[in-house]
Amino acid sequence: MEEVKIGLLGLGTVGSGTVNLLSSSAGEIRRRLGRRVVVTRACVKDLTRHRDCDISGIELTRDPYQVVRDPQIAIVLELMGGYEPARELVLAAIEAGKHVVTANKALIAKYGNEIFEAAHRRGVMVSYEAAVAGGIPIIKAIRESLAGNRIQWVAGIVNGTANFILTQMRDEGASFEAALADAQRLGYAEADPTFDVEGIDAAHKLTILASISFGIPLQFDRVYTEGISGIGREDIAYAEELGYSIKHLAIAQRTEDGIELRVHPTLMPRRRLIANVDGVMNAILVYGDAVGHTMYFGAGAGAEPTASAVVADVLDQVRSLHVEVANRVPDLAFRAETISEQEPVLPMEAITTAYYLRLPVEDSPGVMADITRILADLGISLEAILQKEPEPDQDSVPIIMLTYRIQERQMNEALRRIARLDAVRGKITRIRLEHFDA
Amino acid sequence: MEEVKIGLLGLGTVGSGTVNLLSSSAGEIRRRLGRRVVVTRACVKDLTRHRDCDISGIELTRDPYQVVRDPQIAIVLELMGGYEPARELVLAAIEAGKHVVTANKALIAKYGNEIFEAAHRRGVMVSYEAAVAGGIPIIKAIRESLAGNRIQWVAGIVNGTANFILTQMRDEGASFEAALADAQRLGYAEADPTFDVEGIDAAHKLTILASISFGIPLQFDRVYTEGISGIGREDIAYAEELGYSIKHLAIAQRTEDGIELRVHPTLMPRRRLIANVDGVMNAILVYGDAVGHTMYFGAGAGAEPTASAVVADVLDQVRSLHVEVANRVPDLAFRAETISEQEPVLPMEAITTAYYLRLPVEDSPGVMADITRILADLGISLEAILQKEPEPDQDSVPIIMLTYRIQERQMNEALRRIARLDAVRGKITRIRLEHFDA
Repeated sequence: MEEVKIGLLGLGTVGSGTVNLLSSSAGEIRRRLGRRVVVTRACVKDLTRHRDCDISGIELTRDPYQVVRDPQIAIVLELMGGYEPARELVLAAIEAGKHVVTANKALIAKYGNEIFEAAHRRGVMVSYEAAVAGGIPIIKAIRESLAGNRIQWVAGIVNGTANFILTQMRDEGASFEAALADAQRLGYAEADPTFDVEGIDAAHKLTILASISFGIPLQFDRVYTEGISGIGREDIAYAEELGYSIKHLAIAQRTEDGIELRVHPTLMPRRRLIANVDGVMNAILVYGDAVGHTMYFGAGAGAEPTASAVVADVLDQVRSLHVEVANRVPDLAFRAETISEQEPVLPMEAITTAYYLRLPVEDSPGVMADITRILADLGISLEAILQKEPEPDQDSVPIIMLTYRIQERQMNEALRRIARLDAVRGKITRIRLEHFDA
Repeated sequence: MEEVKIGLLGLGTVGSGTVNLLSSSAGEIRRRLGRRVVVTRACVKDLTRHRDCDISGIELTRDPYQVVRDPQIAIVLELMGGYEPARELVLAAIEAGKHVVTANKALIAKYGNEIFEAAHRRGVMVSYEAAVAGGIPIIKAIRESLAGNRIQWVAGIVNGTANFILTQMRDEGASFEAALADAQRLGYAEADPTFDVEGIDAAHKLTILASISFGIPLQFDRVYTEGISGIGREDIAYAEELGYSIKHLAIAQRTEDGIELRVHPTLMPRRRLIANVDGVMNAILVYGDAVGHTMYFGAGAGAEPTASAVVADVLDQVRSLHVEVANRVPDLAFRAETISEQEPVLPMEAITTAYYLRLPVEDSPGVMADITRILADLGISLEAILQKEPEPDQDSVPIIMLTYRIQERQMNEALRRIARLDAVRGKITRIRLEHFDA
């Protein structure tokens, strides 16, 4: 039976998981592929460290170029993460004529345009199913299964850490800080949680989803990114009371004026399926003009789910090794020469959405009239108002408002004017709200 | 630009939807494929009937052989449905060296083994993404994206009509008959709703899902099939009271003893995501050993969602036209020579599940003791009991019981013994219950 040799860059959690899966699924893979897939070399930092996988038959090396330039190796798996040296090594592998499978969202979001251009020139494949939402096959769904659709928007819970924290805050009534500490204790969040809780990781993934959905270049720098550290447990409770859940969403949307790319906490009706995706799980909602709403749910991280996606990419590549370039699925779903910046990415001020507002105000007559007057002057209509009793130790009462859809520019102006009112005490919380009707 | 010609068998709802989508998405398709896909011929029953699509440029014929034997045509779309003449024409198209895309679940479930064998001999592709769950790309997800997994079980809401009826019964408190009438009025159910409400359509789809998940032949005749016509609105209400939803599920499961293939109403915890898939929507939950739980949600029927799946298959086939057979994805996910009946399909008596029981009994002392004694003798433990007040016009009170997991054989014996008790008045309702924990 024919054998395809692959090399690994990185043998940590995902690398070990991939070696284990290739071994435990070897029988199934042979039944599907009619070939054997064998890991022959792996580059690691420390040759003596214990590995969570069987490394017999795998030659370990500290020199990554022993992997990327090994003439026997057809496919290189980049599973080290981070920008460098991942970028340099992926480019070297491409230069050496290797196909590449990567789980590295940061790399693809930031350097993907350069990487795919190099791969295109060299006629090799670069696959990255594992880079977005771990085991959920969202890249293939958008690139291949929805290929007959004009995709209108994508909205995803693509960071399990942030989703876990929001779920804890709702279920346990925990503060953000307490929920984050829980996530760290359980191993769901890193010691420095910035990438997860401030939305940077989600923005990496959104960059990729938007590119393959709309046929635009990867534009990580254009993504509006807001994390969840400003969400209070009271916001989650008020949202629930009004029939909404708060999720940290990555949203890419096509409008007549351009493309919206934004990552932020979002209220959405609790009856929406995606509003019920809790804990560390991920889900992506995709709206195509023909298929309508579709959703893809699963584990967004972890050694085994990520390995599942890596192995699927390897199998696809093995089948396509001898397929001419024109008959392969294009890297970013659309043929390189047709990817265009014609549809501009809109600045955040130009997006349109609905809003949840929480305003701490003095409990005195006329306050509500002043606020609603400001909103009315700017053409902002209200869908719901909730005025709560003052809490014993507070000198202010919270007013909760849900608005209809309006341009962000108008809302910013309204918040500037409202903040100037004497009766407003403290920080105004503004959370965007989406219905996802169509 | 190169052009690929395709022919259609059938130009009804799905056929017209496909022609419309190929036309409205022509630009996107060219950007993805670098080729044009053109419908040149279509076979219809009535040449004069109005069509819901633009037929300019399409030669209509009443002779299907003008399509399946047209030397210009590379791909034949079978969109007529039903067993015959679909089977005969698909085999003729294969014989003529055409690749085939079909949306016909009945055809694949019943004659797929024969069809794929013929296609394998002739070296052509037969694709069927649209045959299961309409626009949801579940075939590709299982065949390709989860290829590194050993799939343990699949559970799906794959019939929108049945799901709509159950949702109506819950939301409106309607009887089965009234909800069915609603479905018919809204065009969701046919005049003869047997295929949908008795689970035959779901069994067709399950046959296909099981084959590509486990690498077994298509075995439609082995599927245990039970519809929803025996479900009362009171069952739905009691289930809700206990924290469960009732859904009509198609379940394929690998066990140590063999494979379970079953379609039946099922209680499941309401907190499960799939328990919240309502109305005509479909969803399929797939558990793979590496990826864990994944779920795929979307529209299971309708012209446009089905066309979305058909067009995805066409694009895949166009890319694979010149790919050697060994490098194509095998028809049933596993290479033909490895598909085996080694794992037997279990008879229904040998499956294991939990149960919901509704027993109409005389309101007298000792009844509960008699029933629980019978269950205990057979090793059946109870998770919950609910005894309701007698209704004014009834001479019996309902007892509701939830059991732990037990073999169906034991439950059948218990029900035989309980039915013999004098105190039991009328029909016992038994609905299976699954937790889908892992």
